[in-house]
Amino acid sequence: MSSLYPDDSLTLHTDLYQINMAETYWNDGIHNRKAVFDLYFRKIPFKNGYAIFAGLEKVIEYIKQFRFSESDIAYLREDLGYQEDFLEYLKTLTFTGNIRSLEEGELVFGNEPIMRIEAPLAQAQLIETALLNIINYQTLIATKAARIKEVVGSEKLMEFGTRRAHEMDAAIWGARAAYIGGFDSTSNIRAGKKFGIPVSGTHAHALVQAYQDDYTAFHAYAKRHKNCVFLVDTYDTLNSGVPNAIKVAKELGDQINFIGIRLDSGDLAYLSKEARKMLDEAGFPDAKIIASSDLDEYTIMNLKGQGAKIDSWGVGTKLITAFDQAALGAVYKLVSIENEAGQMVDTIKISGNPEKVTTPGLKNVYRIINKKNHKSEGDYITLEEENPQEEKRLTMFHPIHTYIKKYVSNFEARELHKDIFRDGKLVYSIPELNNIQHFVKENLKLLWEEYRRLLNPAEYPVDLSQKCWDNKMKNIEKIAEKMKQSYIE
Amino acid sequence: MSSLYPDDSLTLHTDLYQINMAETYWNDGIHNRKAVFDLYFRKIPFKNGYAIFAGLEKVIEYIKQFRFSESDIAYLREDLGYQEDFLEYLKTLTFTGNIRSLEEGELVFGNEPIMRIEAPLAQAQLIETALLNIINYQTLIATKAARIKEVVGSEKLMEFGTRRAHEMDAAIWGARAAYIGGFDSTSNIRAGKKFGIPVSGTHAHALVQAYQDDYTAFHAYAKRHKNCVFLVDTYDTLNSGVPNAIKVAKELGDQINFIGIRLDSGDLAYLSKEARKMLDEAGFPDAKIIASSDLDEYTIMNLKGQGAKIDSWGVGTKLITAFDQAALGAVYKLVSIENEAGQMVDTIKISGNPEKVTTPGLKNVYRIINKKNHKSEGDYITLEEENPQEEKRLTMFHPIHTYIKKYVSNFEARELHKDIFRDGKLVYSIPELNNIQHFVKENLKLLWEEYRRLLNPAEYPVDLSQKCWDNKMKNIEKIAEKMKQSYIE
Repeated sequence: MSSLYPDDSLTLHTDLYQINMAETYWNDGIHNRKAVFDLYFRKIPFKNGYAIFAGLEKVIEYIKQFRFSESDIAYLREDLGYQEDFLEYLKTLTFTGNIRSLEEGELVFGNEPIMRIEAPLAQAQLIETALLNIINYQTLIATKAARIKEVVGSEKLMEFGTRRAHEMDAAIWGARAAYIGGFDSTSNIRAGKKFGIPVSGTHAHALVQAYQDDYTAFHAYAKRHKNCVFLVDTYDTLNSGVPNAIKVAKELGDQINFIGIRLDSGDLAYLSKEARKMLDEAGFPDAKIIASSDLDEYTIMNLKGQGAKIDSWGVGTKLITAFDQAALGAVYKLVSIENEAGQMVDTIKISGNPEKVTTPGLKNVYRIINKKNHKSEGDYITLEEENPQEEKRLTMFHPIHTYIKKYVSNFEARELHKDIFRDGKLVYSIPELNNIQHFVKENLKLLWEEYRRLLNPAEYPVDLSQKCWDNKMKNIEKIAEKMKQSYIE
Repeated sequence: MSSLYPDDSLTLHTDLYQINMAETYWNDGIHNRKAVFDLYFRKIPFKNGYAIFAGLEKVIEYIKQFRFSESDIAYLREDLGYQEDFLEYLKTLTFTGNIRSLEEGELVFGNEPIMRIEAPLAQAQLIETALLNIINYQTLIATKAARIKEVVGSEKLMEFGTRRAHEMDAAIWGARAAYIGGFDSTSNIRAGKKFGIPVSGTHAHALVQAYQDDYTAFHAYAKRHKNCVFLVDTYDTLNSGVPNAIKVAKELGDQINFIGIRLDSGDLAYLSKEARKMLDEAGFPDAKIIASSDLDEYTIMNLKGQGAKIDSWGVGTKLITAFDQAALGAVYKLVSIENEAGQMVDTIKISGNPEKVTTPGLKNVYRIINKKNHKSEGDYITLEEENPQEEKRLTMFHPIHTYIKKYVSNFEARELHKDIFRDGKLVYSIPELNNIQHFVKENLKLLWEEYRRLLNPAEYPVDLSQKCWDNKMKNIEKIAEKMKQSYIE
């Protein structure tokens, strides 16, 4: 094996430039200045109308273990040549800042902070990469799962993707994110063990091949397992698989619980309709038909449109890899920093593209819920000192096309961020996973159907308060002025 | 935290149906029958002409640790209800079989075994999911990296993808796979520490924002770091970033090693050409221009076509997520199994799609190298007892369109599989990572350029020997006969 050092900490799970920036700050004596970073994405994945936030549990795990191990320090010294004075600083470093975050299962939209990190500058910098790595993936999968859930309604969804996941962490954290997004179970037993997710699965083609025929294989399986789902497409679905499943179910009668059959190839619409007839005629109207085979929300929608008789869906590759858009682009931007005099100064990142200009300042996010219909009017981002609940009538305007505006009264302004870490101490406990899944369902009820459509949903408003918008404009001006002066002729 | 059991083993990193099949075999007393599984994919990803195999190191790690922990057993008993007799069997289970495999960095094509697992049936079944999970991802990334390497030639490639990777394992094993495929470095320090991959990176936009201007930030960085690459696009690339980088480089002279600048947004072709002129005119003709910003092989090819002046490339999202095809579909198929009498019987999985019919039997894979030009004529799959090197003239024919054939003489038949595990014992040691990367380069020299084209490459031949083909036909016949008899009227 070529492993040089033990892989005994996640603290170096970061980009090299983070360490170099931390060293620069430390060298300059500004590493402990308070900095505020926002973590957010610009575009909702899959052109969906909303995203589902996931990743907080792993972020907490990561922050709790954040400490450079002896081997981390040895590697930085021996292989990368960092000097002893800086390493002394790293040796005792732990996270001592504040993190406020959406809760897992919360709906989230473009350009609103998922997390707000207030911490000594160097610390906030060092944790950036891992936070993005975790949140980008888990949020992507929870959102994809929710899209699939929108199509199947109350039918069962099983996550089957481990073999196609991007290595092991993606398999298990992806299974968890899928469960949050509305899946009922996973096939990955380790995920079941670690997170308490229900697990499901019976047998594969190999079982039938090992016994060389459907009948013998189904019998062998049923001899030990009371709950039976037989996979019927190893040799010939309608001529061997289904008839033999029925034959075994009849022979064993009450000795087994014949749950149904699984189709894993071929034309699922045609095969499911034929199989349904055969099962019904044989006296098994309650036997379920489970389908798998490269499914996603579009295929499922089409199969349903064609009247496929499918009761449960096993979804693998397309879910666990978010195949149609395999990356979420959340970013982590400095929005405020302490100056020499100990005052907080807001910062901004400029771009030619208005959507890429950051929003400066310490901010909060509210969901504005109309008390009459219990639907959300949109999300509302304010500066820390504001409290929208105190306003009688709220003006909400589009943060880019500012002429688009509306006025809301009789509303509840629900604050979306919770305190997770205060001064480095964990002050939040993750809810049970079942409750997180339930939280998603409750949150979705706040959305008009127009935002939940799979294709071309309406754009959910994420607006800035007037003060927040004014502050942004002021910062843009400030930079423009500075740029003008600093141009080198 | 909702973690119910410690996540202290990878043995349950498998699909539930694997355990249920193992239990079925064990209940029937056939769990120790010798079984042979082939692990292979059908289609090369990205429509490339070849794939690069990666994943063996992690597979070895996984097989070595394969043992049910106490908490694994407790979970299976308490939460999933498995019975004590079967758990007794699992408690002492280790892997006792043989694994033959391609070496990492080997070229691999569709429908040839990457790995051949010969093991007691239940064991071979239990390890399937993890092997696929590992190999599918790592091979996908090594192949994507090799495609990007084809475009840049000797220019430097840096892997920058951690923040967009699918959770943590993908980030570090993806960095390793990228290095195998031809990348020069990664930004992920943990990957550098674990695998000895060179790491690279200097600073991000946050540094410039923290100091509120380019000049001060670059100075602060240079005060501590001799090797300087300045990121120039925080506020205004050509009017502030580049001029200030030059100013700082001039002021500090020999005190620093001004390596160059990095562009991370905007039109990279235009900006790089302008920046090149500015650097040259300022007396820094050796300063490098490094580019990043959603790059992949197509963007790089286009930028080069437009004469972009870029010396090094930082590639993130599109590589680490294999964005244009985020999954490789390797499968694991039973090809032979011991019968009651202790004889090996070949097995086959039939499909309406000829490409999905498996190839039965214990097989080897040879690369047929023409001794005259040292180019490969194709790969050649034989039954175990054959030795193509003994033949004077080899007949190679297409395994589906059998009329496509050619004859090869004066060849070397290089056996591609190496023994990795014998009777459960590791008998192979992974080469140094540098050597694996070098192995890829050597292997690629065997390919005609036609197979290395990014778009529409020629199809590399993967052929079956006559004996192997005859055996497949015989097995198809056998199943057809069996199906005919077993049809239920």
